Amino acid sequence: MIAILKSGVTESQKNNLLNWLKAQGLDPHVSEGKYQTIIGLIGDTSKIDIDLLCGLEIIESVTRISEPFKYANRRFHPTDTVVEVGIGENKVKIGGGHFAVIAGPCSVESEEQIIAVAKAVKASGATLLRGGAFKPRTSPYDFQGLHGEGLDLLRLARKETGLPIVTEIMSAAHLEMFHDVDLIQVGARNMQNFELLKELGRLKTPILLKRGLANTLKELLMSAEYIMSEGNENVILCERGIRSYDQAYTRNVLDLAAVPMLKELSHLPIIVDPSHATGKSRLVRPMAMAATAAGCDGLIIEVHNDPVHALCDGAQSLTPELFDDVFKKIMSVRAILNEN
Amino acid sequence: MIAILKSGVTESQKNNLLNWLKAQGLDPHVSEGKYQTIIGLIGDTSKIDIDLLCGLEIIESVTRISEPFKYANRRFHPTDTVVEVGIGENKVKIGGGHFAVIAGPCSVESEEQIIAVAKAVKASGATLLRGGAFKPRTSPYDFQGLHGEGLDLLRLARKETGLPIVTEIMSAAHLEMFHDVDLIQVGARNMQNFELLKELGRLKTPILLKRGLANTLKELLMSAEYIMSEGNENVILCERGIRSYDQAYTRNVLDLAAVPMLKELSHLPIIVDPSHATGKSRLVRPMAMAATAAGCDGLIIEVHNDPVHALCDGAQSLTPELFDDVFKKIMSVRAILNEN
Amino acid sequence: MIAILKSGVTESQKNNLLNWLKAQGLDPHVSEGKYQTIIGLIGDTSKIDIDLLCGLEIIESVTRISEPFKYANRRFHPTDTVVEVGIGENKVKIGGGHFAVIAGPCSVESEEQIIAVAKAVKASGATLLRGGAFKPRTSPYDFQGLHGEGLDLLRLARKETGLPIVTEIMSAAHLEMFHDVDLIQVGARNMQNFELLKELGRLKTPILLKRGLANTLKELLMSAEYIMSEGNENVILCERGIRSYDQAYTRNVLDLAAVPMLKELSHLPIIVDPSHATGKSRLVRPMAMAATAAGCDGLIIEVHNDPVHALCDGAQSLTPELFDDVFKKIMSVRAILNEN
Amino acid sequence: MIAILKSGVTESQKNNLLNWLKAQGLDPHVSEGKYQTIIGLIGDTSKIDIDLLCGLEIIESVTRISEPFKYANRRFHPTDTVVEVGIGENKVKIGGGHFAVIAGPCSVESEEQIIAVAKAVKASGATLLRGGAFKPRTSPYDFQGLHGEGLDLLRLARKETGLPIVTEIMSAAHLEMFHDVDLIQVGARNMQNFELLKELGRLKTPILLKRGLANTLKELLMSAEYIMSEGNENVILCERGIRSYDQAYTRNVLDLAAVPMLKELSHLPIIVDPSHATGKSRLVRPMAMAATAAGCDGLIIEVHNDPVHALCDGAQSLTPELFDDVFKKIMSVRAILNEN
Repeated sequence: MIAILKSGVTESQKNNLLNWLKAQGLDPHVSEGKYQTIIGLIGDTSKIDIDLLCGLEIIESVTRISEPFKYANRRFHPTDTVVEVGIGENKVKIGGGHFAVIAGPCSVESEEQIIAVAKAVKASGATLLRGGAFKPRTSPYDFQGLHGEGLDLLRLARKETGLPIVTEIMSAAHLEMFHDVDLIQVGARNMQNFELLKELGRLKTPILLKRGLANTLKELLMSAEYIMSEGNENVILCERGIRSYDQAYTRNVLDLAAVPMLKELSHLPIIVDPSHATGKSRLVRPMAMAATAAGCDGLIIEVHNDPVHALCDGAQSLTPELFDDVFKKIMSVRAILNEN
Repeated sequence: MIAILKSGVTESQKNNLLNWLKAQGLDPHVSEGKYQTIIGLIGDTSKIDIDLLCGLEIIESVTRISEPFKYANRRFHPTDTVVEVGIGENKVKIGGGHFAVIAGPCSVESEEQIIAVAKAVKASGATLLRGGAFKPRTSPYDFQGLHGEGLDLLRLARKETGLPIVTEIMSAAHLEMFHDVDLIQVGARNMQNFELLKELGRLKTPILLKRGLANTLKELLMSAEYIMSEGNENVILCERGIRSYDQAYTRNVLDLAAVPMLKELSHLPIIVDPSHATGKSRLVRPMAMAATAAGCDGLIIEVHNDPVHALCDGAQSLTPELFDDVFKKIMSVRAILNEN
Repeated sequence: MIAILKSGVTESQKNNLLNWLKAQGLDPHVSEGKYQTIIGLIGDTSKIDIDLLCGLEIIESVTRISEPFKYANRRFHPTDTVVEVGIGENKVKIGGGHFAVIAGPCSVESEEQIIAVAKAVKASGATLLRGGAFKPRTSPYDFQGLHGEGLDLLRLARKETGLPIVTEIMSAAHLEMFHDVDLIQVGARNMQNFELLKELGRLKTPILLKRGLANTLKELLMSAEYIMSEGNENVILCERGIRSYDQAYTRNVLDLAAVPMLKELSHLPIIVDPSHATGKSRLVRPMAMAATAAGCDGLIIEVHNDPVHALCDGAQSLTPELFDDVFKKIMSVRAILNEN
Repeated sequence: MIAILKSGVTESQKNNLLNWLKAQGLDPHVSEGKYQTIIGLIGDTSKIDIDLLCGLEIIESVTRISEPFKYANRRFHPTDTVVEVGIGENKVKIGGGHFAVIAGPCSVESEEQIIAVAKAVKASGATLLRGGAFKPRTSPYDFQGLHGEGLDLLRLARKETGLPIVTEIMSAAHLEMFHDVDLIQVGARNMQNFELLKELGRLKTPILLKRGLANTLKELLMSAEYIMSEGNENVILCERGIRSYDQAYTRNVLDLAAVPMLKELSHLPIIVDPSHATGKSRLVRPMAMAATAAGCDGLIIEVHNDPVHALCDGAQSLTPELFDDVFKKIMSVRAILNEN
């Protein structure tokens, strides 16, 4: 951490600050210039409140050098984390070379639908089933999901196919209903719902944490830190597209450089959602291939047996036939990465 | 609402669609072109799920003409809403010509602090007291607020000064603790925490809804709609700066055109937060004056008796002396607007 | 400037770097930590190529502390620059307490139009006339301006009214045609047309430099630096709205905090364009008042005698009657600022 | 094109508008609703100035349905354009299944450097040589390129290796110096320098048009239209990363969904620049592979024989050894796409 002092600071002001910094366990190094004084702070600065420092009258600016996340930081945990999802023989590993494809409909709509999709995606090679029971919708007048009934239908599909289930939670008040969900998803809009993150940090269940609409990589990792610092280190990150100024043709901009960059910053697995990122089913195949080529640990893809009549996000869902083709292409790309 | 059909759609496909649209209570008008067919949909389209329509195989695109919000829409409620905050003789009106300044520290820190600030801002002319008891912080290692104790200190300050209190809620699980808060704030990060919004919609307490970091005006109004459609029509909107590509000097970009634009779209009061928008106390005065000139119904300003030792956001807090000066300037600008 | 070395750098690598830095006239101060070494660079770093330093193998990151602009920097030029536009008795001062309103149509269309508008805006109190002769349009099929004929019409209007003229240049090849223009405008799309900026730097004519669509304040000031470092210090900056993710209701987001922030960073005058920023004539009045309240040195406002038949940007133009009203309101706000 | 009329429009106002629209060669279809009247406009609307329509008093909003570009539009030119670059036996095809890799240093620095890099990238398989002679730099104090001398060195490298040369133009005044350049690049900052685009439209030389920092896909295609409508249809589009709110780790966000989306909208070839997009050499390999997987027609990659001493953008340049490895990986991905 580096602090720049304002010009005109007195010796005694400076010494007071240096003593305070030492009391926080830091080792300050001072460089005096004609116009400015620079203080380099050596030590564990991850728990220093940067706003507090900035607020001091004699300080012009403060810059962090090392990242403020600790549990999620590759510097302190150099090997890849492998998250295990599900139980028994259907357990699936994600990260550290283990690649997983999560597939299923945006919303669970009926027994017939979820069972058909689950069987189809399993046949193609998917190893986890997704399906929304609680749906975050911009409008209160849009379909909000089947709630408890949707969760029960997912359990049924899991029983039929053995696929572990992945579904989104929207409130800590629903935690009990999610007790046996295999992978709990936190959606983009709740990425900074810190009270929810803390509750999820007290579970053992793996968490799929989606990047917020306009959140930085650092903020994503700080949200992972909220979960991990409470004790749950089973966090999978998900890039799902960010908001940009051009929404004429794609809903969001898929930030694929986030994949290698997050892998450099953190040891956590990172998966990509090409369906929500683009909002167009015909862009899912090229974006799924591109994400795999960028080195992600898995994909989450929307598949619906009848996209044109889906109650939600049909426009971005693949049919099972298209998914089968996309899956094969993903595996071809994956094979190239495994070569070295 | 306007739907464009893909080229090559058959007569029977088109007729099926027209029949379905009529069954939804809409009146479709068809314009046939060489390359495209345009269908104009007349009627109440606010409850139509646009994604559902987009998902139909024969449709190229769908555009809304009228806005999908109803309770918050000025079209159906032409006169300004006036929200009343607090009880008895200390009741404050906001909107419809009533201008209010909410002031106080980012976080409640101690009895001494909150009482001192409350008395000071009241003396300057502020009519509501703000103070955070639950603080949303990017890092789990930063100060998170005094929680229940902070709420009790706010109550004490209200008792001392008569100022109604404004404070942020971060989880529906805390609702009971907020039972007598005069104005409950929903922070930017929770603007699309729909489960929380629905719970707040079941209260009578006025809600201060802050615009999310990268949310559109339409999304802000749809979030207001979540609260209002559950029965609570006492919603005050708040512009507090949006995220942009330039964060070198100001934390966010204060979008002041949102003020007259929201007033055109909606009848709800709109206030502005110049403190969070800029993150710099020396920019609060010009931005508070500018916001007032833009026609807002009130301001929310951070004031701290000792900004350099504040536990949170000291850098953007005014001292009581500076606030007194800013308040006078705001009133001068306000006087010009009242002239006509 | 601060450089962070990678871990594992050898003593001899570090000494080579320190010697090189000293050879550049800088005074390096070293702080050694357990994981990192920080080098504080004291001296004139404005002419150091930051990318060159970043490219060195042993360097992890480099951060500028002082700004890389020099001529435009208030640190080296503490008093406000006053730019004089026009000649003789019609000369207008901008900056340092001198406030100017530039008004006129988006495009010059005919003698009748420009003379009528010029007379009207002069009568209201405007002191400079704007009018486009070369129009940057997204589409090659849209009206591109009257070119040389448009410039002649502006000269005629200047002769009639005495108002100095302001018009946009799109290519250095047109410089001769602009020889007697009083204030040459560089549009947002050409803010980083560096070859054009250098040519303008060799003139004496004042330059109105508009901020690019998605350019930072630092980039704006570096573009001013391109002009000033060639010898022309008569630069006026212009905030005209930046691109954001929400374009549903306003074309751009007017960044009014840029006004006080640019005044802190630079001594150059800063004016605001509320017409292009919003794209809606009914938002011009509140935004012009807000910009004035934020402390700008002037405004540039579109006025057309027949907005509904304007060949370009009619939607954002005021009628002369509306402009007269807006001008009065601006002056009322300006009076408040002059009080202290 | 669809126009919505304001409520309260009279019959005679509406009829005047309909007559005017018919006079423009359009066929208007009217749908009357309780609150609104919708007019569907059938015909060639590409040459209608949308701002002109919007400015009419009786119109609430206008929406384009078909895209306003014509020469660049796949609708009117369904087969892929193949651009031929260079002459004689070294001619290279780009587009329509022909994939090309352009490689070379950011700046031409010396004979030794450019010849060494040219030979190395040719040996690896690159078929075009890039190198900057005129460099757009944010600061006037940064290295601006060798200008004419740089162009001569590129010619020398072409003579040595046979590789066609690609270099950036910054002003129409330099056109003569560029007379035998094989592929003229328009940089991001000049994407909307319309006077330059028109001049380039009068040449036969192929143009590499880079997307601007914050420009939409539609604006990119309209800029291609500027070149094409003057007669030069040899345009190659280039995605090179767009500006976002997160610049902590990557300079820009590479928008890879732009690749399939542009291919759907236009018949022009589209290449990707992973070097400028990320600004980090270690991200070039994953992003080059991802771009190839997304279906682009080629890549432009920075290669320097001594990146740590490069005068410009060394941090993002690959060594020839790394480039050789990246090239092989790109070819492996390309092979998968060629399978079907």
